[in-house]
Amino acid sequence: MPKSSGFKQVHRVSEALGILFEKHQFIPEPEDIATEASFNRIIANDIRSSVNLPGFIRSAMDGFAIIASETHGASETTPIPFKIFGTIDIGDQKTPKLSSMTVMRISTGAPLPKGADAVLKLEDCEIVDSNTIEVVLPLTKWKNVAQADEDIKVGDLLFEAGHLMRPYDIGLLEAAAINQIRVMRKPRISILSTGSELIPSGHIPKIGQVVDSNRPAINAWLTEFNVELVKSKQHGDNLEELTRVILEMASEVDLIITTGGTSVGTRDYLPQIIQEIGEYWVHGVAIRPGKPITIGHIRNDAKRTTIVALPGYPLAAFLNFNLFVVPLLEKWTKQVGSWKQKTIVTLGQKVPSVEGMRDFVRLKRDGETVKILRITGAGILSSLTNADYLLEIPEDNEGYPEGAEVEVIILRPENE
Amino acid sequence: MPKSSGFKQVHRVSEALGILFEKHQFIPEPEDIATEASFNRIIANDIRSSVNLPGFIRSAMDGFAIIASETHGASETTPIPFKIFGTIDIGDQKTPKLSSMTVMRISTGAPLPKGADAVLKLEDCEIVDSNTIEVVLPLTKWKNVAQADEDIKVGDLLFEAGHLMRPYDIGLLEAAAINQIRVMRKPRISILSTGSELIPSGHIPKIGQVVDSNRPAINAWLTEFNVELVKSKQHGDNLEELTRVILEMASEVDLIITTGGTSVGTRDYLPQIIQEIGEYWVHGVAIRPGKPITIGHIRNDAKRTTIVALPGYPLAAFLNFNLFVVPLLEKWTKQVGSWKQKTIVTLGQKVPSVEGMRDFVRLKRDGETVKILRITGAGILSSLTNADYLLEIPEDNEGYPEGAEVEVIILRPENE
Repeated sequence: MPKSSGFKQVHRVSEALGILFEKHQFIPEPEDIATEASFNRIIANDIRSSVNLPGFIRSAMDGFAIIASETHGASETTPIPFKIFGTIDIGDQKTPKLSSMTVMRISTGAPLPKGADAVLKLEDCEIVDSNTIEVVLPLTKWKNVAQADEDIKVGDLLFEAGHLMRPYDIGLLEAAAINQIRVMRKPRISILSTGSELIPSGHIPKIGQVVDSNRPAINAWLTEFNVELVKSKQHGDNLEELTRVILEMASEVDLIITTGGTSVGTRDYLPQIIQEIGEYWVHGVAIRPGKPITIGHIRNDAKRTTIVALPGYPLAAFLNFNLFVVPLLEKWTKQVGSWKQKTIVTLGQKVPSVEGMRDFVRLKRDGETVKILRITGAGILSSLTNADYLLEIPEDNEGYPEGAEVEVIILRPENE
Repeated sequence: MPKSSGFKQVHRVSEALGILFEKHQFIPEPEDIATEASFNRIIANDIRSSVNLPGFIRSAMDGFAIIASETHGASETTPIPFKIFGTIDIGDQKTPKLSSMTVMRISTGAPLPKGADAVLKLEDCEIVDSNTIEVVLPLTKWKNVAQADEDIKVGDLLFEAGHLMRPYDIGLLEAAAINQIRVMRKPRISILSTGSELIPSGHIPKIGQVVDSNRPAINAWLTEFNVELVKSKQHGDNLEELTRVILEMASEVDLIITTGGTSVGTRDYLPQIIQEIGEYWVHGVAIRPGKPITIGHIRNDAKRTTIVALPGYPLAAFLNFNLFVVPLLEKWTKQVGSWKQKTIVTLGQKVPSVEGMRDFVRLKRDGETVKILRITGAGILSSLTNADYLLEIPEDNEGYPEGAEVEVIILRPENE
C-alpha cells in the first residue's frame, strides 16, 4: 500500500461532483438574439403569443369550399349537384362571397370564402363536368376547416422561461411573428494548457518535449455545447506567469479549464496557484487513470470563477473532462454531451479493479465478446482512440469475472 | 373510404426510405483541413504515424530515477540508502548521466536520465534527509517508466479511412505532429421554401398569409450535422421561377430540401417540376400527419442531386424531415441526430390508429400516465412544441388500449 500519496484527501468521484455542483457559481445575464439563431439556447422569460394562428379561417384539405347546411340529405343514392364557381389559392388575400348551391375550388391552407363553413374533400365528391360536382355525403359545419385560432390563441403561453429551444420551436415563434427573443447568454470558458514541455502544433517532439495536443482536443469537445470559448492559450511552468494569466481569464469567464501541473511534482503549480488566488475544493480524485485533478474557484471581485485543472496526461485529461466538465456544461446549457450511448457486452476475460477507485477500462470487440485493450498508463491515449467501449467500474467493486455481462459506453459504433 | 387520393401510389415509410437509400447519389471529394478543425469529419485516407510516442523514455510517476539492479535485496528490514543528486523536470531536454547508488528527483512525464532504468514512486521510499533516501523494496527494470514507443510506434495505423473524428482523436493526431489531414468534404445542402402565401420573418400575417417559418427551423436543425448550408431561399408559387431556382441549386449541392407545394392542389408545382427536370421516386407516403412528401432527383449533367420536397404544413414538414432527411444526413455524416432518446410510458387513454398508415401521436405527461395532446391537424405545430413525447405507431397496428406501455421519443426532458 502507498505510504503517502502526496494528496491530502483523495475524494471519490461522487463526492467531488457533489462539491463541484454545490460550490460553483454561474450567474448568466439575459441577452436578446434573433429567433432564427436560438437553437439550443435557454429562454430567459415566458413567451406569450400576441397573435392568433393561423390568423384566419382556412381550408385543411384540398377540395371545395361549401355551405355545410346545403349538403344535408346528400347520399350515394340522392346526390346533390353544386356549381363550381372559381378557385381560391394559398396566398389569396381577398376572399369572395360564396353564393348558394355553389362551391369554390380551394387548396389546403387557403382562406375560406365568405359564407363558406366547410370543405368537401376532393375524394369525397363526383366531378360531373368542369362546372359541376355532385356531393354524396352530408358535411357538418367547420368540417375540414382550420379555425383562426386553431393552433395558437392570443395570450397563449408558447414557452416558459428555462426552455431549451429546439428547431421546431424556432418555427413556432417565427410563425407567431416573434423573431427576436430574450435568452440566457452562453457560458464563457477559457482554456489554458500548462507545461514547459509543450511545443506548438505540427512540430515533431525532441527529447523531453510533447505537442500541445490536449488543448485543440478540448477546444473541439466544447463545440458540442452552446458555450463561448473566450481564450485558448498555452503557457510554461512559471508560477507568476500562470497566476497572472489565470487571474486575467477569471475576470472574463465562468469556467477556466487547465491541463497539466496538477500533481505533486516539483513544477505542479496549479493547486498552489488556485489556493493563493482562490480556493481548491478537491485535489485528487480516486479514479484510474487520472487521480491528480484539482477543482476550485478563483476569487475575482464579488465573482467566483470555477476552475477545473485537468491532469496533463491526455487519457487522464479526457476521462476527467468527461467526468467533471461535461456534467457542469450539461447543467449550464441543458444540452446532452457525448459518451451517452451505452450497450451491454460480454467480457471475454476477467477484468480486475481496485476497491475504492473508480476504474475506466478500455475494451475492444473480439468476436462475440470484448477484451481489455490495455490497462496501464495514464499517458496511453491510443488505448482510448483504439477502444470500442469504455467500462466504468464503481469504487465498491473489485472487478468482473470472464463471461460477465456489463454495461459500457460506446466509443466507436459497430458499423463504423 | 376515399375514392381518389390524388396520389398515384402512396408508399409505406420503409418502402420510401428504401427507395431513397437505393437511388440517392452522394460522391464527396476529399479535402485537406487542419486537424484541430476536424471534429466530426470523416477521414478520407488511412493515417499512419511517422513518429514514436512519447518519443523518449520517460517517467510514468513522480519519484526518483534509479538503476533497478541496485535495488535488489532491499526490504523494510534491510533498506538500501541512495544519495539524491539533482532533479529532472518535465520539458528538460538534456538528460545527465545517473551515477551508481544515486537517484534523481523526477516528475511524471520527464525524460529519464542516462543509465537509469526505473522510477521509484515517492510513496514507496523513506526520505532520510534532503540528500538521502532509503529504498525498501526491489524494483524491476523499466518499472514506472514509459518506453519511447509505448503509446505509438512509427508506422502504426492511427485511423482508418471512414473514421468519424472525435475530440480525443484530434489530441492523438496533434501529439503525433499530424496537424493537417484529408477528410471527406461536408455534404452541401440548399433549402427552398415555396409558397405565395409566405411573408418574411417578423411580419404579422394578414388574411391568407403565413410567415416563412419552416425555413429558419430547418436551417437550425441542419446545424446538428456537419453539413454546409449553401443557400436558403424563399420563392412564390411560380412554375418557371421555381424550376430555375431548383436547377441552379442542383448544380451546387448534394441535397435540395424544399417545403410546400407537394400535394395535389392547383399550385402544388413541386412534383411536376421534379418530374420535368429529373424524376420523382416517391410522391405520397402513408404517414399521418404528413402524406404529401415528394422524393426524387434533379438531373444536372452527369450528377443527380437528391431532392426531398417536404409538405408546407409545419408539423408535417418536421415529421417528414425527421423521417427522411435525418437518416440521409446520418448516413452521409455518420453523426447521430436528435429524437434518439427514448423511454417507456403508460398510456392514460386509448390511442387509436389507422391500419396502413404510420401515425405520429403527440403525448403529454398527466400524472403517472400520458395523454394525447391533440390528434388532428397537420398544421398544428403547437401540438409538437407542447408535447413531451412522440409515439410512432407502425402501419400494421390499429392503436393501443388504455394502460398499454409503449416506447416513445422524448421531445422534452422531464426535468426541464
